[in-house]
Amino acid sequence: VSRLLAPGGPDAVAVVLVGDELLLGAVADTNGAWLARTLTGSGLRVVDVEVAPDDEQRIAAAVRRVAGLARTVVVSGGIGPTSDDVTRAALARACGCALVRDDDAGRQISEWFTSHGRSVPEPALRMAERPACAAMVVNPHGSAPGVRLDLAGTTVYAVPGVPAELRSMVRSVVLPAILAGVGATVRTASTSLEVVLLGESAVARRLAAVEADIDTDPTAELAYLARPAHVSVRLSVRREPPDQAQARLDDLVVRAEAALGADVMGRDGVSLPAVVLRLLVEAEQTVSVAESLTGGGVAEALTSVPGASAAVRGGVVAYTGEVKSALLDVSPGLLAAHGAVHPEVAAQMARGVRRRIGADWGVATTGVAGPDSADGQPPGTVHVAVDGPQTRRVRTLNLPGDRVRIRTLAVAHALDLLRRSVAGLPEPGNARESETRQGR
Amino acid sequence: VSRLLAPGGPDAVAVVLVGDELLLGAVADTNGAWLARTLTGSGLRVVDVEVAPDDEQRIAAAVRRVAGLARTVVVSGGIGPTSDDVTRAALARACGCALVRDDDAGRQISEWFTSHGRSVPEPALRMAERPACAAMVVNPHGSAPGVRLDLAGTTVYAVPGVPAELRSMVRSVVLPAILAGVGATVRTASTSLEVVLLGESAVARRLAAVEADIDTDPTAELAYLARPAHVSVRLSVRREPPDQAQARLDDLVVRAEAALGADVMGRDGVSLPAVVLRLLVEAEQTVSVAESLTGGGVAEALTSVPGASAAVRGGVVAYTGEVKSALLDVSPGLLAAHGAVHPEVAAQMARGVRRRIGADWGVATTGVAGPDSADGQPPGTVHVAVDGPQTRRVRTLNLPGDRVRIRTLAVAHALDLLRRSVAGLPEPGNARESETRQGR
Repeated sequence: VSRLLAPGGPDAVAVVLVGDELLLGAVADTNGAWLARTLTGSGLRVVDVEVAPDDEQRIAAAVRRVAGLARTVVVSGGIGPTSDDVTRAALARACGCALVRDDDAGRQISEWFTSHGRSVPEPALRMAERPACAAMVVNPHGSAPGVRLDLAGTTVYAVPGVPAELRSMVRSVVLPAILAGVGATVRTASTSLEVVLLGESAVARRLAAVEADIDTDPTAELAYLARPAHVSVRLSVRREPPDQAQARLDDLVVRAEAALGADVMGRDGVSLPAVVLRLLVEAEQTVSVAESLTGGGVAEALTSVPGASAAVRGGVVAYTGEVKSALLDVSPGLLAAHGAVHPEVAAQMARGVRRRIGADWGVATTGVAGPDSADGQPPGTVHVAVDGPQTRRVRTLNLPGDRVRIRTLAVAHALDLLRRSVAGLPEPGNARESETRQGR
Repeated sequence: VSRLLAPGGPDAVAVVLVGDELLLGAVADTNGAWLARTLTGSGLRVVDVEVAPDDEQRIAAAVRRVAGLARTVVVSGGIGPTSDDVTRAALARACGCALVRDDDAGRQISEWFTSHGRSVPEPALRMAERPACAAMVVNPHGSAPGVRLDLAGTTVYAVPGVPAELRSMVRSVVLPAILAGVGATVRTASTSLEVVLLGESAVARRLAAVEADIDTDPTAELAYLARPAHVSVRLSVRREPPDQAQARLDDLVVRAEAALGADVMGRDGVSLPAVVLRLLVEAEQTVSVAESLTGGGVAEALTSVPGASAAVRGGVVAYTGEVKSALLDVSPGLLAAHGAVHPEVAAQMARGVRRRIGADWGVATTGVAGPDSADGQPPGTVHVAVDGPQTRRVRTLNLPGDRVRIRTLAVAHALDLLRRSVAGLPEPGNARESETRQGR
């Protein structure tokens, strides 16, 4: 396993993320994820990521270490003007040469400030320093230039930590240079299948034959990326010539899709709300949402998709029995007899919101998110319902986990029920799978 | 700078994040950020983070390297049942002993599956393996047990990569054990102030005097952790004896809070929805929500807080003009004359939902999330409104960024307007700041 992420080779890249804030847990590391996704998406392989504090010695050690693993190293952060920006000094230390002032860079920095109507602050000229053996890299989006140098055959780039500046410098300079050096032949071809509400081990059982085939093929790899309510199955082939890699990949994808059936909602990172929205727009149909335990999460997910207003009319969050009756026409007698956590309540909510708001489809959630029991039912007891053209479906669930997880899974179940209803797909199959389904 | 992040010392912790998916950029690394934040919040110091692929040799090398920097190493991921879960084997390699089957762990795994009504899958028993020198760690939330071992004086923990399981194992086992080993004297005393909807540079301007003081004190540190709509200001002091550290910290906190005023919503990681909910519960008041561009996000945020049903009655997502009139009594004439993106529409939505659902407070959002303009207004044009006892407020905004960011900021503005209204705090002050406010 992980054969495709082995160090070495012209397509191997390592990343050093510089910044105290990352070690303090301040910020989720968006630069690392973006670099990994972008470089991988271009057929390159990120083989190592290290996070280093704003410390000259530690950064130098990290760069020297990962330079032994990859032909290219990208160091992000620590090239700004303040005294805690020490990446340039660390690179000078790593390659054993002095820091020098680059006159061209000094001029460009001065011009950048002048063209933005500002005087040049004294510390800004620190950004014109570079190791004597290095070259400067133009920053299309900010004042801090990047740095490029050679370390025993590995090319090291220092780029800004500000996400917009990092992205533009990587896209415009770093990535084209790496790809030019690599050539087309060694790049990795890959596709991911997005599987909804099926546990990783259930997915693995279905893919046993595909996996057995891949196990005997050193050019192919399969990886599972589990998220709440969602497993991405990533199939990769690294083989020459590239058209053979693509043909092999296509064959694996077709077989994996056949084994996973309707539980595959799409490919290459597509999200469940986006799939549902596309189905509705294609059918020229609309939806409205009635929510109890998810509290707006289903509507929020659907409207997070650009263009949602083409299909989403609105929704009602009914967190009390009164609101369920007053705005969704749920029978007060039903609520009095059974409480709000009941499949028929979910069905009436879906029908009520569909009629009150006027939409082709109504989708509803009710249940207990926890941490406490409610209506005599334990946390995780959930009913989701869909009401639409010639269609009424209710899915009853016993979801695991804490409040956040139960709500996340309930949103996914509501959207998946709607997906299958709009697409005319059956509900998920046999008992063993629906157990697993409940387990994730 | 970075004075508090130097390696070594009993309070130093290093982290190895295992998983091909992290190097493929498939998932943003939430575990690393959570671990850093949680350990730092307990007075420990995370001095290194490395991301390693699902590869035995690479994980072993990473563990050996960071064990030289810290007294504790936390390895997350790679302890599940599938063939790409190789962390246990990597730890055996790192400490030079064999993998053995742990009988107690095998029984616990079997019981876990049985108690969840499932038969034990054959691969699950791989999770009962551990290096001969290691002990198992109970997983309170899942089937995969953790592992603990000693590597030349450094304690290494392997914990699950599934975030909920990682968090519960770290909270219940790993963190208490580290803290017990460290003792109180070397811990870093720290507090964070949670500042809402003010940019990092605006916060820094307000804290200039506090920062100048800290710059001359090698035992103190200030860090900004910027998130969307939210900056955490972390003040830390590492000094012996601990009561002196606490006294110095208390002084800094008081001065920083005075400088930041009503823009501080709370301390130590509190979230804006939790603050709003606490204020409502304390006042014994209720709220309902009317949303257009946020599509359910405000209601979702409020109901994400445990105990939300004590104050939240419900809401209406009105994504079309018809729904705004039919369910929220927004004047059709107003909509015809000005479109939906208008301050008076927000005000009528807030009043309408308050009356229709029957709550002390109504809060509403309308605007353009993008990517396209709507009603002749560009993305980012947003109005949020509150209607309550003797109170009507509207905040008009011109928000930057893409669809996700505009929606996130609009949710935060609606909740902040409600926070200030319920607490009787004034709207934010002068022009310079409200520019910055709009900028984040």
